[in-house]
Amino acid sequence: MSIIHKLDQRAKQVNSLLCVGLDSDINRLPERFLTQEYPQFEFNKWIIEQTHQHVCAYKPNLAFYEARGEAGWKELAMTTKYLRQNYPDIFLIADAKRGDIGSTNEGYVTAIFDELGFDAVTLSPYLGQEALQPFLERKDKACIILCRTSNPGAGEFQDLVTDGKPVWQRVAQNVAKKWNKNGNCMLVVGATYPQELEQVRQAVGEMWLLVPGIGAQGGDLEAVLKVGLNKQGRGLVINSSRGIIFADDPENESKKLFASIKK
Amino acid sequence: MSIIHKLDQRAKQVNSLLCVGLDSDINRLPERFLTQEYPQFEFNKWIIEQTHQHVCAYKPNLAFYEARGEAGWKELAMTTKYLRQNYPDIFLIADAKRGDIGSTNEGYVTAIFDELGFDAVTLSPYLGQEALQPFLERKDKACIILCRTSNPGAGEFQDLVTDGKPVWQRVAQNVAKKWNKNGNCMLVVGATYPQELEQVRQAVGEMWLLVPGIGAQGGDLEAVLKVGLNKQGRGLVINSSRGIIFADDPENESKKLFASIKK
Repeated sequence: MSIIHKLDQRAKQVNSLLCVGLDSDINRLPERFLTQEYPQFEFNKWIIEQTHQHVCAYKPNLAFYEARGEAGWKELAMTTKYLRQNYPDIFLIADAKRGDIGSTNEGYVTAIFDELGFDAVTLSPYLGQEALQPFLERKDKACIILCRTSNPGAGEFQDLVTDGKPVWQRVAQNVAKKWNKNGNCMLVVGATYPQELEQVRQAVGEMWLLVPGIGAQGGDLEAVLKVGLNKQGRGLVINSSRGIIFADDPENESKKLFASIKK
Repeated sequence: MSIIHKLDQRAKQVNSLLCVGLDSDINRLPERFLTQEYPQFEFNKWIIEQTHQHVCAYKPNLAFYEARGEAGWKELAMTTKYLRQNYPDIFLIADAKRGDIGSTNEGYVTAIFDELGFDAVTLSPYLGQEALQPFLERKDKACIILCRTSNPGAGEFQDLVTDGKPVWQRVAQNVAKKWNKNGNCMLVVGATYPQELEQVRQAVGEMWLLVPGIGAQGGDLEAVLKVGLNKQGRGLVINSSRGIIFADDPENESKKLFASIKK
């Protein structure tokens, strides 16, 4: 079973495109977790228990764990282990935005795919396909390439027009036509840019897209669903992080977003 | 004292532009280190003791530490602590190639600048200045932005021509003219592309550049020095990693490269 098939199966099975971002910033955890030995892990477990029935994927952003050094790294590993043991069908994305020269990427491949056991990792395209080959060669794992990011200043380089097309469109084309030989590529397109999302969908066929920017960042869910779904009515991993995990009632918040996506 | 001034002072003081890359891949360490409790740290200490008199900077690549999970992260922290205590004048670069949306970058800022105590970090420009603001605002730290990377396939997006200029030149211009308000920016330009290095030097004035790609990657040192130095005859941090640290005699290898740079 290809790794994208795992994602597709899970999305079908629970009828959900929702991804919960486990961006468990230690500075924002509810107080009751701070006195525990593993605060980020215990918080994540609590979030997972409340949301798992509504999600196709979880996506911890590594920055929030690295901020705590080896302690954070350990709790991230505890989180992925917990997920793999208890919810092996859920797709696990490392939001790491890595990308180095080829030989160095081997280190990240080991860390993220083998040590932490993630199914997928987000990658920056700036160094090109040749550099990212150690990731792309892993047929058992997925590579999610930044295309059009969700931040307000995303256009500084992504919108530069080259031969009639913006850079982000070149990234979408190259990934779809050249990088995806193992059928394990996806793209990141922010929910804050639905027009671009529509064009990416046209350019990449059925490819799955990771769509951050719903919730705290103000992305437009309705517009995203209108233009972004693939022919199977799936193909989007719609992420919300802060909007769910730091809500007063994360279970209810995830249920609400789950329901709005299904509509 | 600005952080770039620290680098400049050190380079002047030891008359060296050499940076040793502490890419201490556990799979390549000499056997005698593997039986120690902290193999990467002990190896780094050994390399540092043999090379410190010839260097202006050290640059561990985080991938090689992350590959070992929390153990590697701990040994990286031990390494930076050792350097700050024993060689506080040496410039410490985290080769991490990070870059996320603004709020998330706070986590990396904490991890790399505050927890690990690095002076500088390498960053991907793909998300633009607005996203990298948490790094750029740190006047006490340096931001080293990827411009023209050293890998063979660097041109896939970096060479795309936009308004008569390749993307890498736009990065150089924007960083020099807009991002560098705190005087804490540098750029990465591979030694494997001396023509591009010459153009970057022309575009950015006296700005310091990090130049990887000497040694194992085959960059041309003579060409780099010919076109890359600034008016003070400095302005380049010339990095060698594998070529020095995995040499039979790292001390001699660093001395040789130090001497070739001075010529």
